[in-house]
Amino acid sequence: MSKVKYGQMSKMKTETLEYRHDDVVFRGHLVHDPARTSELPGVLIVHEAWGLGDFVKQRAEKLAEMGYVAMAVDMFGEAKQASTSEEGMGWTRALRADVPRLRGRILAAHEALLGCPQVDRARVVSIGYCFGGTTSIELARSGAPLAGVVSFHGSLATTHPAEPGAVKAKVLVCTGADDPFVPPAQVQGFVEEMTRAGADYQVVIYGGSKHSFTNPKAAERGVAGLEYNRMADQRSWSAMHAFFEEIFFRT
Amino acid sequence: MSKVKYGQMSKMKTETLEYRHDDVVFRGHLVHDPARTSELPGVLIVHEAWGLGDFVKQRAEKLAEMGYVAMAVDMFGEAKQASTSEEGMGWTRALRADVPRLRGRILAAHEALLGCPQVDRARVVSIGYCFGGTTSIELARSGAPLAGVVSFHGSLATTHPAEPGAVKAKVLVCTGADDPFVPPAQVQGFVEEMTRAGADYQVVIYGGSKHSFTNPKAAERGVAGLEYNRMADQRSWSAMHAFFEEIFFRT
Repeated sequence: MSKVKYGQMSKMKTETLEYRHDDVVFRGHLVHDPARTSELPGVLIVHEAWGLGDFVKQRAEKLAEMGYVAMAVDMFGEAKQASTSEEGMGWTRALRADVPRLRGRILAAHEALLGCPQVDRARVVSIGYCFGGTTSIELARSGAPLAGVVSFHGSLATTHPAEPGAVKAKVLVCTGADDPFVPPAQVQGFVEEMTRAGADYQVVIYGGSKHSFTNPKAAERGVAGLEYNRMADQRSWSAMHAFFEEIFFRT
Repeated sequence: MSKVKYGQMSKMKTETLEYRHDDVVFRGHLVHDPARTSELPGVLIVHEAWGLGDFVKQRAEKLAEMGYVAMAVDMFGEAKQASTSEEGMGWTRALRADVPRLRGRILAAHEALLGCPQVDRARVVSIGYCFGGTTSIELARSGAPLAGVVSFHGSLATTHPAEPGAVKAKVLVCTGADDPFVPPAQVQGFVEEMTRAGADYQVVIYGGSKHSFTNPKAAERGVAGLEYNRMADQRSWSAMHAFFEEIFFRT
């Protein structure tokens, strides 16, 4: 851990958390509220195809304010960010084609978060956006002992479907009815996969919503089918919050 | 209005609310908290195929305690309850085959609730279970000026799909992934109907859940495919609550 700094107006504490997997160095972005001294639930936040940027850092800040130790994960190494949409989509395509490597990276991030003294190791979830949602679901499929995972407009297809009994994490999927990257047949395939696996899962379909509905800058990427939707953003955040309440505080 | 009585342990006030449609007399079950003196949001609660019984009355009581004027609707007339599953399913089949009559009955209940002095007419929703979910969605399709409708394991098929622009109510559908009466193709057909209609809608699919997942006595009906699911019951109730918070208090 290095580069401890305090945000300008924020009372949250921000650190860079370094970890390794297969000789690659990753730099996560860890945020928590130093005023809370008891062990706190931990949240991994996995970025979109563009890498660990402001969007997930802002969500980490928000989650830290809500009382979680939030770690924005680095899936590309050295906290690389894509300079073009094509570059980011190339990186995620390569990782998705190599599921063991993808799972290895998110498992390494999970281990790193578990090593933080502020984190209650029994109460950890992974959430993610787009590629990060896919990654969080791969972490669940891997059988990692998490409390839960949440995917926001993540692709639900995989080359490594969950084995029966493998999924320990409760699963919440938030998806747009008009998302061209997550079409109805893919959602139904996921439902069937999770049913076969015996997973505890929920899928929420938001009407009038395309891909990347949580990101106010979605349209700036110049990729067709991406669009911010304020209602779906708020509703899915609220659904996540209710999910956390259930798994962290009621069971 | 007649038969004012107070529940044994409850501080809620219960009344029978009579109303008419096409020469049939209906007897709704109205509950509110007399300690709350300001105008309150109103909730129509529509019963399953078995008629206005204890299940919806208990939900009405719960909603009244939460601060709503709750009216358990009578869709069969004279507050009739089915003596067998076959009888109830026969009654609902007949109503579903005559959508104008079905809509007329729920619209009459809606009018009756709007006539109650405790109700804030701008803040009314309709929720329902099984046949009652279907009925609430038909009310939305009719273009009635409601704030919202919620269907719990209601059939989503109709002979009168919503016209573009018709649906004024926000729509929340809670459905079981393993509900044989609401199979995936029906859910997808509903998504397409609502998209074409330009409705504001959300669909939540609960894994491991069959038909009637909210009703602890589901299995007693002796109908295949009905099963209580405690998690899906709690989660869908919590989703409804978040939906009410949004439409009644945040917009």
